[in-house]
Amino acid sequence: MKKSHLTLSAFLSAALASLLASGETGTLTPSTERLQQHITELSKFGANPEGGVSRVAFSSADIAGREYIKKLMQDAGLIVRLDAAGNIIGRREGSVPKLPVIMMGSHIDSVPGGGNYDGDVGVLGAIEVAQVLRERGVKLRHALEVVSFTDEEGGLIGSLAMAGRRQPKALDVMSHSGKTVREGIRAVGGDPDHMEQARRKPGELKAYVELHIEQGAVLEESNIDIGVVEGIVGIRWWDVTVEGVANHAGTTPMNRRRDALLSAAELVLAVNRVATRLPGRQVATVGKIRAEPGAPNVIPGKVVMSLEIRDLAADKIQQVYQAIQVEAEKIAKARQTPITFTELQVAAVPAPTDERMRRIIAAAATSLGLTHKLMPSGAGHDAQDLTHIAPTGMIFVPSVGGVSHSPKEYTSPKDITNGANVLLRTVLAIDRGDLNCV
Amino acid sequence: MKKSHLTLSAFLSAALASLLASGETGTLTPSTERLQQHITELSKFGANPEGGVSRVAFSSADIAGREYIKKLMQDAGLIVRLDAAGNIIGRREGSVPKLPVIMMGSHIDSVPGGGNYDGDVGVLGAIEVAQVLRERGVKLRHALEVVSFTDEEGGLIGSLAMAGRRQPKALDVMSHSGKTVREGIRAVGGDPDHMEQARRKPGELKAYVELHIEQGAVLEESNIDIGVVEGIVGIRWWDVTVEGVANHAGTTPMNRRRDALLSAAELVLAVNRVATRLPGRQVATVGKIRAEPGAPNVIPGKVVMSLEIRDLAADKIQQVYQAIQVEAEKIAKARQTPITFTELQVAAVPAPTDERMRRIIAAAATSLGLTHKLMPSGAGHDAQDLTHIAPTGMIFVPSVGGVSHSPKEYTSPKDITNGANVLLRTVLAIDRGDLNCV
Repeated sequence: MKKSHLTLSAFLSAALASLLASGETGTLTPSTERLQQHITELSKFGANPEGGVSRVAFSSADIAGREYIKKLMQDAGLIVRLDAAGNIIGRREGSVPKLPVIMMGSHIDSVPGGGNYDGDVGVLGAIEVAQVLRERGVKLRHALEVVSFTDEEGGLIGSLAMAGRRQPKALDVMSHSGKTVREGIRAVGGDPDHMEQARRKPGELKAYVELHIEQGAVLEESNIDIGVVEGIVGIRWWDVTVEGVANHAGTTPMNRRRDALLSAAELVLAVNRVATRLPGRQVATVGKIRAEPGAPNVIPGKVVMSLEIRDLAADKIQQVYQAIQVEAEKIAKARQTPITFTELQVAAVPAPTDERMRRIIAAAATSLGLTHKLMPSGAGHDAQDLTHIAPTGMIFVPSVGGVSHSPKEYTSPKDITNGANVLLRTVLAIDRGDLNCV
Repeated sequence: MKKSHLTLSAFLSAALASLLASGETGTLTPSTERLQQHITELSKFGANPEGGVSRVAFSSADIAGREYIKKLMQDAGLIVRLDAAGNIIGRREGSVPKLPVIMMGSHIDSVPGGGNYDGDVGVLGAIEVAQVLRERGVKLRHALEVVSFTDEEGGLIGSLAMAGRRQPKALDVMSHSGKTVREGIRAVGGDPDHMEQARRKPGELKAYVELHIEQGAVLEESNIDIGVVEGIVGIRWWDVTVEGVANHAGTTPMNRRRDALLSAAELVLAVNRVATRLPGRQVATVGKIRAEPGAPNVIPGKVVMSLEIRDLAADKIQQVYQAIQVEAEKIAKARQTPITFTELQVAAVPAPTDERMRRIIAAAATSLGLTHKLMPSGAGHDAQDLTHIAPTGMIFVPSVGGVSHSPKEYTSPKDITNGANVLLRTVLAIDRGDLNCV
């Protein structure tokens, strides 16, 4: 079943590649020079001493950066507006008024101490596509919208609103800017009291496609130009509590201890072992750990630690979790230290991309002589929200050393242009109707 | 060598027991009723809802408790004074003016959320001994002093001063009372600007003997009445740092991680394994651990944890440390995560008790029909400082369940009276000159 499916995919990719290669758009291409200039200019807003940016959503750096993006959109001939969530939307009309919108986008806010590529490449790449279409006088049948989403790093605020999936209490969360999300949205010109107006209904969008840096090292290590994203992984979080008996570290002999940290240490190793040994690309991580009472001279009576599991398939996440639970039960029994798992309500369901979109992106890469591979996105993206309201695709370009959320984040000019080029070809293919024929 | 030594010890114990049994002091005995009344009354100062006390040094509860102790000392015919460190000293003169002082003592300050026996039993037991001697009109040749030491739990402040071993910056430390130690000593009537005046020179004290609860479960489990303390263990502390690479928990595959917490977990288990497998009674503990950056979705790039090793022999501590270092090197190499140990300047050297004092205490127990065993003290005590200026002995009584530093701390009335009785017999034996003949 899987094999024949792949064969069909390969066949269709080849067919699309030849279509694209033979078309009148073959010579359209993004400008590396202009893309690099825009990346350099955007990097000045919130520049940090390490060479990256600290442009957290709603900060003055973010607000200034957003003005710069609006100007670039206008220069590319787009009509700029804000929606209620503060998402910046630049639009050019299509030649057939009633057709749904082809949307491209990403975000320009950063984590504290972030880099110059995460999000930025997607927004600037999409603007470049609009600019090229304008310069070459290419009129599309569908309207085209470029979106710079609000506060991606703080919890996908803008894209959740657009997908009508926002969380009830998200507006009250204190953002890194020192403003609540509500205050922040108001500060950038949105209308937090009417967030529902930002919603786009299924059918309004023909497709959504996002260019992004990989943030991992898979493409660089396998020397592949383009990642065709299969989907954004689901994420589940637990607090894991190990109960032992706190006691005096001097008066309690080694053979009379019920040390919660010993059990926790075994569980940390078991989590890694389970995730590593099962076939697949699932990941499981303990990133946080605290021993109580937490004094050098007291045997830990309790340990609380985090557990995160990610995979493209919800079933696989559950399978990993259950295998970890089995290990935990063995440890708890052997050491007489009960272990409990409390799931936190931050789960993200796996968000597979549209299979037709994957094929169009793969074909676009092939038509440009670029290598590509199917891969999951281990990180969250605005695209995961858009999957709920539109056929969605994502294009990855290599991250040097897999470094991200760091000033050391880097993607080469050539790879950025390649990504923008694949984005351009993908938009043209969708406009031509390839979503209907593959 | 060791065997013949034990045989000699057993012989002498038996000889002393028969001496004591035949003497005129055979009928002197502490009052269980009065001891229990004093324990109950003292427990009201700083009583916490859980049934223990929070009578941290220099708190109003401590200050009120100290006044109660002074009154009990006066009732027992002792002349009360404070030294510069705020130690409360109750004295009765001996019949031979030039002989050195026999000192008994402990402390009445508690940890936050402490119990009613740690320290209290020693101070009240010593006062009871003085009371019995007074009631029975027993005049000793040596002067007798009962000491309630200042701020034992905050770092042996009073006994270090008496031994002339105080730490340069100890007075600036903020105590749990909210006062610095300097302010606290002043508040209880001491003179922190002239702490050196609290010092007692070697030769001033004939002996120091301290009655204390075990704070461990060794006596209870082996059903032994009295612990004859061999010494107070030495303690060394390290900060252990594991360096990995922090990375995105979603985009970094399992096989590309250098997770500092995995190495730390292996080391936590290795510390326990080393301390458990080596012959002896050494203990090693990791009580504190922190992963950085400490987010559920970031692979730990760094872990800092504590390491504490205790033993009666400094060599053994060093041996355990070196064995742990060997394990750490293997882990660091296998996982490419350098591990470094930084020793903290809080080391306590092992403080063996005086061998003659051990024999006298053992003989006193035997003379009372009580079982006893030699054992180390895993916890620190004022006695460890006194070992530097006087022949020192310690008497342990059983702690139910080994619980201490907790409101659940408990020692039975019978065991407390047994301990006070051994203390009384020990003082009589020392006064009689047994330190010179064993």
